[in-house]
Amino acid sequence: MPIETLSTNRSHGGTQGVYKHASTVTGTDMIFAVFVPDHAPGAKLPVLWYLSGLTCTHANVMEKGEYRAACAEHGVIFIAPDTSPRGEGVPDDPDEAYDFGLGAGFYVDATEEPWAKNYRMRSYIEDELPSLVLRNFASADLTRQAITGHSMGGHGALTIGLRNQDRFRSVSAFSPIAAPSQCPWGEKALGGYLGDDREDWHAYDACALLDQGLRVPDLLVDQGEADNFLAEQLKTELLVEACERNGQKAEIRMQPGYDHSYYFISTFMAEHVAWHAERLKA
Amino acid sequence: MPIETLSTNRSHGGTQGVYKHASTVTGTDMIFAVFVPDHAPGAKLPVLWYLSGLTCTHANVMEKGEYRAACAEHGVIFIAPDTSPRGEGVPDDPDEAYDFGLGAGFYVDATEEPWAKNYRMRSYIEDELPSLVLRNFASADLTRQAITGHSMGGHGALTIGLRNQDRFRSVSAFSPIAAPSQCPWGEKALGGYLGDDREDWHAYDACALLDQGLRVPDLLVDQGEADNFLAEQLKTELLVEACERNGQKAEIRMQPGYDHSYYFISTFMAEHVAWHAERLKA
Repeated sequence: MPIETLSTNRSHGGTQGVYKHASTVTGTDMIFAVFVPDHAPGAKLPVLWYLSGLTCTHANVMEKGEYRAACAEHGVIFIAPDTSPRGEGVPDDPDEAYDFGLGAGFYVDATEEPWAKNYRMRSYIEDELPSLVLRNFASADLTRQAITGHSMGGHGALTIGLRNQDRFRSVSAFSPIAAPSQCPWGEKALGGYLGDDREDWHAYDACALLDQGLRVPDLLVDQGEADNFLAEQLKTELLVEACERNGQKAEIRMQPGYDHSYYFISTFMAEHVAWHAERLKA
Repeated sequence: MPIETLSTNRSHGGTQGVYKHASTVTGTDMIFAVFVPDHAPGAKLPVLWYLSGLTCTHANVMEKGEYRAACAEHGVIFIAPDTSPRGEGVPDDPDEAYDFGLGAGFYVDATEEPWAKNYRMRSYIEDELPSLVLRNFASADLTRQAITGHSMGGHGALTIGLRNQDRFRSVSAFSPIAAPSQCPWGEKALGGYLGDDREDWHAYDACALLDQGLRVPDLLVDQGEADNFLAEQLKTELLVEACERNGQKAEIRMQPGYDHSYYFISTFMAEHVAWHAERLKA
């Protein structure tokens, strides 16, 4: 499985690259971004995964996320995948809505048609992409991984983190969709990709996974209080309650005045990178 | 002259705003971005102007420039204007080229037709916009101003800084067009906006202004060595020579591996903000 280098730019004392490969899991070409700080020859650096939100590609956080200075300071590799399969023949929401189909893979393995063939972002993030990184980025130390994400990607970070607690030393999120089974975005996506049986949704609902007994080693969440999606879609309070109910160690911070945008994410990105770096020390 | 607030977002402990007003100088609506760090009631903060490069609007640096953390830390207001007039009836390059007309005002007051009516970015930056800021941003201390910019905007920062040395305590630039009279971008723009008499170009050529005896209080320049435009368009070496020849205090740094993009600008932005802040202290 070769990868193609689409671009590299020197930035903040490291290399910001964009790469393409043919994914066997999604059946499409997939693009992802990797920032590798300068390091001594042969050195191994820990990896922080960032999963993006609705409508995003790898590029949004790469351009607006302001993670490179912190990653260079702490010696952390930052990997940003796309949010869905794309390309000819990949089905999209019939109304081209922003919250389903292209740009809205929700980090699930779809079981419903016509989505099941391509929409397999869970397996892509959990299996194929780490395997590809292992073979192509010699400096990536996959014994030291952490994961974060924003909104739909915060949901992805939480649920992938919970289901893979041996893989990730730490999990964080910016304004995550905390309980997809209980909000319109999640009900549309999980119903569409997985069908009507809500039992099947639990593997993709952080609060449900916590109630099932899954845990992450440590959790940090930032949520803007002026976020337009907070009350209807994100429901941070359900995550707070689920962590308390289940004894999950967590710091969940409400940030006054901040909204759902990268103006918010970039503000707290350096703190998240430093928090993960502390937990990723060799 | 009222201004309209198009958006505000809380970011990095301050407010990133975007504003629109009807410019009497350009005869068009103009949009600009202002970041104001949180401050005590009645406090006055110094102002750093940022002039953008070819094809850019106010938005590029606002999204990719990574200046907010440093501006909040140092208590500096950051203002990013557009690069040209825009809107119905504003003439553009007949071939819609990226290096003339819309997005390419070159910070001149055009004298040639059909440009002279709208293309007056010199007067806009030197007179109208600071006057507007003074009346609408109570925290802006216009007795303490600095200016920077990128590429065409680096040219703008240098030439506006040189022509207004009482206004700016410090001037910096990222990969500036150092001698527009001696490169294809500059020859096309200055010839087009000002006509064929090269004497008229000197007011818009940093090296020529230095040779005429104009100075800035202090100058910092960063230039990527892997910048594709370095040899043909930017010609940093001419600025180095002009500063040496004229005794202009300057630190001009060549940065190995860096290109012309915001991956480069964002890397050194915090250093530029800190450098200006030191010189803007009350």
